[in-house]
Parts: sequence; structure tokens; C-alpha cells
Amino acid sequence: MPEQRFDPHDLAQMAPRYRARFINSLSGFKSANLVGTVDGDGRTNLSIVSSVFHLGAAPPLMGFIVRPHTVERHTLENLLETGYFTLNAVNHPHYAAAHQTSARYDRDQSEFDACGLEPRFVPGFVAPFVAQSPLRIGLRLVAHQPIALNQTELVIGEVVQVMVDDAAVQEDGYIDLEGLGVVAISGLDSYHQTDRLSRLSYAKPEHPPHRLTLSGQPEEDA
Amino acid sequence: MPEQRFDPHDLAQMAPRYRARFINSLSGFKSANLVGTVDGDGRTNLSIVSSVFHLGAAPPLMGFIVRPHTVERHTLENLLETGYFTLNAVNHPHYAAAHQTSARYDRDQSEFDACGLEPRFVPGFVAPFVAQSPLRIGLRLVAHQPIALNQTELVIGEVVQVMVDDAAVQEDGYIDLEGLGVVAISGLDSYHQTDRLSRLSYAKPEHPPHRLTLSGQPEEDA
Repeated sequence: MPEQRFDPHDLAQMAPRYRARFINSLSGFKSANLVGTVDGDGRTNLSIVSSVFHLGAAPPLMGFIVRPHTVERHTLENLLETGYFTLNAVNHPHYAAAHQTSARYDRDQSEFDACGLEPRFVPGFVAPFVAQSPLRIGLRLVAHQPIALNQTELVIGEVVQVMVDDAAVQEDGYIDLEGLGVVAISGLDSYHQTDRLSRLSYAKPEHPPHRLTLSGQPEEDA
Repeated sequence: MPEQRFDPHDLAQMAPRYRARFINSLSGFKSANLVGTVDGDGRTNLSIVSSVFHLGAAPPLMGFIVRPHTVERHTLENLLETGYFTLNAVNHPHYAAAHQTSARYDRDQSEFDACGLEPRFVPGFVAPFVAQSPLRIGLRLVAHQPIALNQTELVIGEVVQVMVDDAAVQEDGYIDLEGLGVVAISGLDSYHQTDRLSRLSYAKPEHPPHRLTLSGQPEEDA
């Protein structure tokens, strides 16, 4: 297939918005999560992020990138103030509402109200969850470190609460995100459903991987 | 729908492999990329990673997490030695081969050979690209910082080369990953194709987002 090649000069020449869309597309499909926070006065905030990533299982750690000089600044201020935040998986019926949280609302206007999403509070946990999300995670802030190269911040939280629709958790611990209708993001603004190709067995040098069922059993035994 | 709730005690009680699958599922869909590196003796290495994320467009920066005490150690050693690495999007026909790169091969055995993937070299760029990948990115190492919480390393590269199949780049800069057959990952071992719901317009507080075509035009105008 014919291909386009871009060198540093080509990349530098791109108009800023073209480059933003192009570079944001390079990393591949991204997770779609809503970050829920609250400030010391009880004002809730909700912001979609596509940079959440797994950092480790023991202890259970997740990270994401905040741009403090954008609409995301309230999220950062709030989670630094209270020490807690939530991550709520975005599912198909609510992807447009989730996208709308990226609009630049005033601090006094909660994105929950503005975007038609419902906060849910859990006793003993200060940050708001999203009632409509099928996978809701409560995290305690454990680290934040500046990325000096571009004035972003890496935020790291330890998972302390997980609420997930019952049928999704498989017997081997895998969570069926696809069955929950969780969406993926590409670029700045494209939302996608998924269609499972397969789970694959743990890779070993001696032989190729074999396909696993949703519940993690070898397909031939299923 | 009935839901399961997990508190810190429940999470701590999980058996290690169950917990690994469970916690790895929490972040949502993940990107599927092959990291290509070479050592000073010309021995190539290829490793699948699901933690690549967009860090910024200007300068164009991408990051990923390396676990230095796992099979990924060769990747880290090589990119620190040469200062360059590649990220190659994994597409549908090659997802099982890409998964197989996570097996623990000896240093002298290249994952390219072992997994049936072909290295492609570009003049003036030391690290190997994956010939079968429809989106190949060359990066210069610009930072690496330890995450003290769990002995992982955040690696950050600046994009200096992009090669992509011609038809995928839209007029507004968005790259049609779905059209390229790029896959997403969930959990440790599940691979997914995607099905676009829509692109959405830039969010503004006054009105809900509207749907965009693949090329970024409002749908009603298309």
C-alpha cells in the first residue's frame, strides 16, 4: 500500500490543530474514563480523560496525565485538595455526555448537571462516582509528578474501591469491558465500540499462543 | 443491574494472578504497540506494550511504562544505549504474533525472527520498525523517570518519524486507526477490533456536541 512519510520538518510545519489531531492519533486506541472530583466546598467536577493507564497490580496503581493549564485544572486542584478521585468507565449510551464534559464550564457549574450525568456518593469516600458508569473505581492519590518537558502532571492513584456490574467479572479475574459496553477513543474526538478477536494464552517461547474463551479457558476445552 | 463491590480488603485478598487480570482490566481499552529497539551489537528486540499514551502534540511526545525486572528489560537497556526506539501499531492480521513477543526469549534470539515479524530499517534511524505494521513511529528518547512506588520506569520519546498507509490520514489530521485494522487490548490478553460510533465536534458549554464524519465534517453537511 502507498504510504506517507513524515520527518521532523513535516511535523514542525503542520498547523497546530492539524498537528494536535495527527499526534493524538499516533498512540493507538485509548481508554475513555470520567474523572470525578470534589472541592473543599462540595462542588463536584467531572472531566473526560483518555490517558488513564495501568501502572501496577500489587499495589493496584493507575495513572493519568493532567494538563494544568486547560479545562482540566479544576480536576487537578480538587484531587490535590481532597486526596481522592474516581475513574468511571464510559459506556456506549453515555459517550456524547462524557465528551461534553470537556467543554469549558465555570467552576460553579458542575459538569454532572450540565451534561446530564448523575453523581453517586459512597459512604466514607469523598469523591463522586458516575451513576451511569458500569465500572466505577475509587482511588487515593499517592503521587503526582511534573513532566518537565511540557508542563503536564502525572497523577497516580491507588485503587481502593471498585464497583462493577456483576456478570462482567470472569472466574479468572478478567473484566469483560466489551460486555459492559465500554468504549475506546481514537484521536481527540472519535469513539468506538469493540468486537473481541480473542483472548490469548500466556506467551511462552516454545509454542504459539492459543485462543482462550471469555472466561479464560482454552477454546478446545470450552 | 446487580453489582459487585470490592473494598481494599477484598483487593488485598485476591490471589496474585487473579488480581493481575482484574486490576489490568480496570483502566479500559488500551493501545497495542510493538516497541522496536536494537543494542550496540546490532541485536534487535521487539516487545508488545499496552501502556503507550499521548503526552503532548507540541512538541510531539509519547510515553510508556516499562517494567525493568521483566521480559521488558532488554527494551529498556537497548533504548537507553542507543537513544532511539520505534512504536508500531498492531493490526488485526498480526495480533497473535505481536502477543507472542511477550514470551521470555533469550537475548540472542530476536523476537522478530521468533514471532514471524519483519524488521524494516530506515536510513539514518537506528531502531528497527515492523514491516507489517500500518503505522510506524520513530522516536528519540528524551526522558526516563523512575516511578518510585513500584519500580517501573516512565519512558518518554519525541516523535521524529511517522510512516502511515496513505489513505488513513484525513484532511484535518485525524488518522483512521480503525480503517488500518489497528486493534485494542483489554486486560492482559484480550484483543479487539473496533466499530466507530462517531467522531464528535469540539465541546462548547452552550450546546451538545454534534456528530462528525470520518473526515471531520459535520454530518448534516456531508
